[in-house]
Amino acid sequence: MTGPAAPTPSALTALRPLPLTAVRLDRSGLLGGWQERNATATLPHCVDQLTAYGNLANLRRVTGDSDAAFAGMWFADTDVYKTLEAAAWSGTQPGFVTDTISLLEKAQDADGYLNSYYQVDHVDQQWTDLGFSHEMYSAGHLIQAAVAAARTTDAPQLLGVARRFADLLVRRFGPDGADLIDGHPEVETALVELYRLTGHEPYLALARRLVELRGHGLLGPGRFGPRYWQDHTPLLDADEATGHAVRQMYLLAGAVDVAVETRDAALLAAAERLWESALASKTYLTGGQGSRHKDEGFGDPYELPPDRAYAETCAAIGSFQLAWRLLLATGKARYADEMERLLHNGIAGSIALDGRSFFYSNPLQLRTGHDGSHEDTPSQRLTWYSCACCPPNLARLMASLHGYVATATPGGLQLHLYAAGTVVDGDYTLDVRTSYPWDERIDITVTAAGDGPWTLALRVPAWCRDARLSVNGSLVRAGAQEGYLRVTRTWRAGDVVSLVLAMPPRLVGAHPRVDAVRGCAALARGPVVYCLEHADLPPSLDGVLFEDLELDAAHPLVIAATHDLPTAHDLTTPHDGAAQPVAPVAILATLRARAAEPADLYRPLAPSTAGTVTATVPAIPYFLWANREPGPMRVWIPLAAREE
Amino acid sequence: MTGPAAPTPSALTALRPLPLTAVRLDRSGLLGGWQERNATATLPHCVDQLTAYGNLANLRRVTGDSDAAFAGMWFADTDVYKTLEAAAWSGTQPGFVTDTISLLEKAQDADGYLNSYYQVDHVDQQWTDLGFSHEMYSAGHLIQAAVAAARTTDAPQLLGVARRFADLLVRRFGPDGADLIDGHPEVETALVELYRLTGHEPYLALARRLVELRGHGLLGPGRFGPRYWQDHTPLLDADEATGHAVRQMYLLAGAVDVAVETRDAALLAAAERLWESALASKTYLTGGQGSRHKDEGFGDPYELPPDRAYAETCAAIGSFQLAWRLLLATGKARYADEMERLLHNGIAGSIALDGRSFFYSNPLQLRTGHDGSHEDTPSQRLTWYSCACCPPNLARLMASLHGYVATATPGGLQLHLYAAGTVVDGDYTLDVRTSYPWDERIDITVTAAGDGPWTLALRVPAWCRDARLSVNGSLVRAGAQEGYLRVTRTWRAGDVVSLVLAMPPRLVGAHPRVDAVRGCAALARGPVVYCLEHADLPPSLDGVLFEDLELDAAHPLVIAATHDLPTAHDLTTPHDGAAQPVAPVAILATLRARAAEPADLYRPLAPSTAGTVTATVPAIPYFLWANREPGPMRVWIPLAAREE
Repeated sequence: MTGPAAPTPSALTALRPLPLTAVRLDRSGLLGGWQERNATATLPHCVDQLTAYGNLANLRRVTGDSDAAFAGMWFADTDVYKTLEAAAWSGTQPGFVTDTISLLEKAQDADGYLNSYYQVDHVDQQWTDLGFSHEMYSAGHLIQAAVAAARTTDAPQLLGVARRFADLLVRRFGPDGADLIDGHPEVETALVELYRLTGHEPYLALARRLVELRGHGLLGPGRFGPRYWQDHTPLLDADEATGHAVRQMYLLAGAVDVAVETRDAALLAAAERLWESALASKTYLTGGQGSRHKDEGFGDPYELPPDRAYAETCAAIGSFQLAWRLLLATGKARYADEMERLLHNGIAGSIALDGRSFFYSNPLQLRTGHDGSHEDTPSQRLTWYSCACCPPNLARLMASLHGYVATATPGGLQLHLYAAGTVVDGDYTLDVRTSYPWDERIDITVTAAGDGPWTLALRVPAWCRDARLSVNGSLVRAGAQEGYLRVTRTWRAGDVVSLVLAMPPRLVGAHPRVDAVRGCAALARGPVVYCLEHADLPPSLDGVLFEDLELDAAHPLVIAATHDLPTAHDLTTPHDGAAQPVAPVAILATLRARAAEPADLYRPLAPSTAGTVTATVPAIPYFLWANREPGPMRVWIPLAAREE
Repeated sequence: MTGPAAPTPSALTALRPLPLTAVRLDRSGLLGGWQERNATATLPHCVDQLTAYGNLANLRRVTGDSDAAFAGMWFADTDVYKTLEAAAWSGTQPGFVTDTISLLEKAQDADGYLNSYYQVDHVDQQWTDLGFSHEMYSAGHLIQAAVAAARTTDAPQLLGVARRFADLLVRRFGPDGADLIDGHPEVETALVELYRLTGHEPYLALARRLVELRGHGLLGPGRFGPRYWQDHTPLLDADEATGHAVRQMYLLAGAVDVAVETRDAALLAAAERLWESALASKTYLTGGQGSRHKDEGFGDPYELPPDRAYAETCAAIGSFQLAWRLLLATGKARYADEMERLLHNGIAGSIALDGRSFFYSNPLQLRTGHDGSHEDTPSQRLTWYSCACCPPNLARLMASLHGYVATATPGGLQLHLYAAGTVVDGDYTLDVRTSYPWDERIDITVTAAGDGPWTLALRVPAWCRDARLSVNGSLVRAGAQEGYLRVTRTWRAGDVVSLVLAMPPRLVGAHPRVDAVRGCAALARGPVVYCLEHADLPPSLDGVLFEDLELDAAHPLVIAATHDLPTAHDLTTPHDGAAQPVAPVAILATLRARAAEPADLYRPLAPSTAGTVTATVPAIPYFLWANREPGPMRVWIPLAAREE
């Protein structure tokens, strides 16, 4: 059985996911280390928080086993479902899984309804406020948890619960039911996955119906207007990603699932078009999406403030899930590129080194004097949130991470994400050894080769200008085609494929329409975006305000291992106290303290003069920020005036 | 009787306001024209909207004369009070005033309580949610309306209503009452004004008590933390303007009133310190304040995005009221400078040419493709708002505008704001003739001179680098001292004082810590900030995206009258169809369309190359934007790369 998103044999799809058991990520690698941390720290933490914050007690109120008040958000059940899904993918937390599934079976109404907020205090309001009630959204997360459990275990209980709820949805909102949709898309992709698992066509039909009903104003304007929940125009006609970023990404993920299973090329094209629109003018350098705190929404085109970036963790996860579906559907490398960018930046940055605290919004800048007292703009990660959608969402993604690494086609295997581990596809077994993304070399040993020729395709990321592939030491002269280097041959056990993706540190600029970072550059290496953090300023810059530092772009950038840098040393020690096998790489940049300026906020325009105080400062991977003492940070660094 | 904020004789104050009858603004001038438009268009519009939106019906529910549902915000009464105050200052709308005062008298409870939201449906919740109930805030606006009525008429009814409510506040929250404060400051300044009018000390004592109780966490964290309502630290200890901008400004205005009446120099110093902090890093070029939509709040220092500027109209009005109080208390010109900046930009821009539509938030940039469907980010002014605090607030300011123009000291008269009109102070009468701010010359004729010498002080704005003063044609050689040019002499009727404030168009830069406008300049002339608006682009720029235009700062700026410019011609016709006596001045700037760029949102950093398509484009006064077809606008214009 596969991981998330498994097209049926008849689906319109270019690539096929491998069975979840086909890939194993080594904990010595970055991705495998994250997955290990997820299983040993994040997931247990989530399970604990479900008790501490009352999510499980909410369900026990339904069964009469708790008299506590309802706690948390009205969609608090979804935190339980996402944690269940994570536990299923990771194969851990059996006690929590068993107990919770029993609780859910007991809490479910006879007709299949299950929602602890609406089953005790607000029974008469069931299905009355679909714009904000999240009832189908909650059902969707229940279904996804059940699909994960069914794909990874033989236990049928949770699937039974999910199907009873899904059948209720079909009766209520299917072709014979009401023309209504949920304010928060999510159930669409869940229903398609349930169809994939069960073959029960009405689930797919309902998913398609919900996608098609959206965009006709059924939800009304709500608090933020119909664009907020993508109900302003049918998806087939939409030309711009808009509104609440998570809703937009979840909707598109569901739409792609519907499109591939119904072989609806127009719907797939619409999803690709909206994805392109988001990437063209509404996505942060980290892959994060959502420029506004007020409605957690996409802003206008090119409205991408680094300080007020909302870039919700769930939006990045939704974008990752969408990119995965588009990759499967089309085979285009750019979707895998985006998965890589998200994973190493917007997603990885949302979690602390110890795996037990989280960002909900993921800004690209924090100023000196920042007021971090609010949940939506904390100075450091928090252990939980009043709306705790992000942590268990991250847990379910990390738990299924090995499912996204590689795909197959008849006669071929595609490696999309690079990490130490093993890949098994039928008779073939690959052993991948790499310290990517810190090291530019990826060695792949064929340890079992099967019979006859097959094609190994290795993604060459768009950021890479110099990719070299060798087989058994011989350079392969062919260049990448459509983002992949491909080698077709009859492989033998012991063959070694080496891919070197040159990753010199580089200066990144933004389109000049991105007003918010005009005159700035960002640092990147390979797929990793870097940032300056206050903790790394040397004593020679004592007394210089962080905001008065500029980048001297004329000086070459060099790299250094973080364990060689006193200030960044703490970042080489992961959650279990052991040093990381390969320390993250820092980029050493030359900064220049701005020359003295008048204090006036506004003044006659004058060219700036270059400062004279310079220092070499390590920039660290963005995803490692806020793991030391709180302080200012920035991804986009002002460029110093050139010396005349 | 004076206009708003009239210190008692014993107050700690440097300047004294003139009686409201002492100044008349000519409708031919900009300020007088605004005041006229306010009386003939805005105020009648507000009165109409109070009926249309149910505010008056809300009060009639209390008296049993309406069975409609409560309409609008729970503090909807304040729209009535502010409109009443505006009517009082302007001496118009007598029918509305009489009827509404009778209604209020009838609606008031026997103990003095008056609040239509809490008198019918939520009686048991009176005084139970002071953080958000706005009950004292509403009382404050009632009191201010009553003070205005008492200062401009002989009718005592409204003052009776206000005093009965104020006496209730004293009983409930005075020294013998509860230690509680309102989440929204406003009543403090109102109580001091009521004390000034009545001499009743307990009102002053309560105001002082409310200022001193704030900052001790009495309100709890609420939704946005204690900084939101300035309850995180006592005002005397605070060093940074923070939280909800309107609340901060209203609190400081009340604190200054308390400080001057209680001769509390430390409290006055604290208010000045917080004002300075706001001006140093948290104020827009237009004088607007509030960088965040989510909590209508100040952001972090230097967080001043032009596109997402909240810059609520009420915050600008509150800042104006605070600056006026600080001007009176200290006599410092910088406060009058700020009043001038606010009036000609942040405040003036909030209202349409016709006086009947309004901005609530006042952005400094609107992009191509802006989604203007939300009330908080409309593309054009709206005729009313679901929270309609701003329009009647503007109406009461404009109605009392003549009260802010000049002040007196023993033996002296100070002119702070320049506009055509007359000023009478005792035996002296001045006739002011000017087309300021379009013309740089202000002629002041002494039409009645009285006996003995006195000093005329004329403000020289900080933006002015070349001020020339002549008396009867002879140049006065003395320079400005502390922001004022002063002439002391025994004046004779017929003496003419001419002040020329040189106002070449100028390029303004921002402190480099203002990340959001790095690499940009703004255009200004005199006190007026300019903007580029899409409607003014010439046909030669057809097909160029507004966001791809940059300013060629090497070309000199020149000025032109808007009535000579086809695109800006509509801006010379005010509300009544007659052409303005003096057309606003435009600044002609040379723009350069950016050279073709790759479409990629992010790319290797490369220096931009100067475009080759240039055009001369008029920039219009910011306050005139959005009076033609909707389209993009910007105050901060990217600077074109220099040609090598």
